[in-house]
Amino acid sequence: MKDKPLILITNDDSVKAPGIRALINYVRPFGRVVVVAPDRPQSGTAHAVTIAHLLRIELITKEEDYEEYSCSGTPADCVKMAFKIVLSRRPDFLFSGINHGSNASINIIYSGTMAAVLEGALAGVPSVGFSLTNYSLSADFGPSEQFIKTIVSDVMAHGLPRGVCLNVNIPDIAEGEIKGIKVCRQAEGTWEEDFDERKDPNGRNYYWMKGMYVSIGNGQDTDQWALENNYVAVVPVQFDLTANSALETLRKRF
Amino acid sequence: MKDKPLILITNDDSVKAPGIRALINYVRPFGRVVVVAPDRPQSGTAHAVTIAHLLRIELITKEEDYEEYSCSGTPADCVKMAFKIVLSRRPDFLFSGINHGSNASINIIYSGTMAAVLEGALAGVPSVGFSLTNYSLSADFGPSEQFIKTIVSDVMAHGLPRGVCLNVNIPDIAEGEIKGIKVCRQAEGTWEEDFDERKDPNGRNYYWMKGMYVSIGNGQDTDQWALENNYVAVVPVQFDLTANSALETLRKRF
Repeated sequence: MKDKPLILITNDDSVKAPGIRALINYVRPFGRVVVVAPDRPQSGTAHAVTIAHLLRIELITKEEDYEEYSCSGTPADCVKMAFKIVLSRRPDFLFSGINHGSNASINIIYSGTMAAVLEGALAGVPSVGFSLTNYSLSADFGPSEQFIKTIVSDVMAHGLPRGVCLNVNIPDIAEGEIKGIKVCRQAEGTWEEDFDERKDPNGRNYYWMKGMYVSIGNGQDTDQWALENNYVAVVPVQFDLTANSALETLRKRF
Repeated sequence: MKDKPLILITNDDSVKAPGIRALINYVRPFGRVVVVAPDRPQSGTAHAVTIAHLLRIELITKEEDYEEYSCSGTPADCVKMAFKIVLSRRPDFLFSGINHGSNASINIIYSGTMAAVLEGALAGVPSVGFSLTNYSLSADFGPSEQFIKTIVSDVMAHGLPRGVCLNVNIPDIAEGEIKGIKVCRQAEGTWEEDFDERKDPNGRNYYWMKGMYVSIGNGQDTDQWALENNYVAVVPVQFDLTANSALETLRKRF
């Protein structure tokens, strides 16, 4: 009998977040699942890796076809430790999330959830990140279930093109209102930061970063448009950042 | 008289690193320079932003046409704080580095130096990151001077295409051996990690991450090839991660 597929699950909101618990429930029927996720929230850690501090990893749960570990590092650290310390072979698939909050548009470059997915893709593992456009810990992940299962089934059946992973964002609306799945490009957008200035008891200034997402270009082929129009947005993502369109112009200058 | 150009300088090795001191020296003659850099090394922080902790920023030096601040955050935090708290207007240019160590190939996705550059580009500021392929704090930045000045002059004279920033890597060889500047695409490569397992005095395991860069594809048009063949490598970089080549295939599946 063929072995069950080996599936690695991680996230950036910590192993205790409701989002990863939902993803684990949806994905466990598909194979042997190993969870390696951060022991505390790591939102906004992007692709950070831990090279100046030590790392810990701890087994939390072990059942038939299921293991769960918490790791002291970032999401990228979790994937690297899973590959080298936890798993006896490369996993067949990697799923990350469900993130509490959108990773559409420019959010991808700040996202620990998607950094884990890029780590999977770099290692040649078909990898998908899932996010729900609701930051709340009490968000309702129920409506995402059928769409996540559809995408997981498809990727497990057909794989992904070499060097390509998926960034899946799910609108935070009732199940019946979601119109379907749209394959999109990353929308143009940015964050407009603001800093809340305060004084500590010694009279020294300190700051809290706040920010607001600002949409720049929202063609109907973008993830941001899809979400605002009640579609699940699927963006194929690569880790080659070369701006190919600029190569020729710059070759004339240097 | 027209105002001098306003130039923001940052890095990820900390405001005290020899690399940023060299860059400051090379760039000061070009305009009014404001340095906002991390107060401690932040290598490998990638595009992390600080949302769960407070931030501090401190004026270190103020001279004619020159200010220097140290910031408790990541390189991306430094740029955001410079834009919102330090500078009275958007800077005309942003230069980051000189990084101690290569940011060519896949290193870009782990790089704090390049995250700062992408933050600049996101805000529409022509931005360039410089790195020397030598991790040592006692690296010789002398040979990089003329190439950095050439690139800084060119970017200040002609700007950069919208949404494009530059990743410049300089080989760690004598000045006379550098053959020139090559505009390249990002080479395919990956890191092969290894974890050094140790036991603490209480008998609990802990780990140190080690890694080795593994080259995958090194066509003669890549940054990795250019560096290995004694050229300064200039890669135009974008923050749109869409794998355009995969859009059509995936649209047939979903």
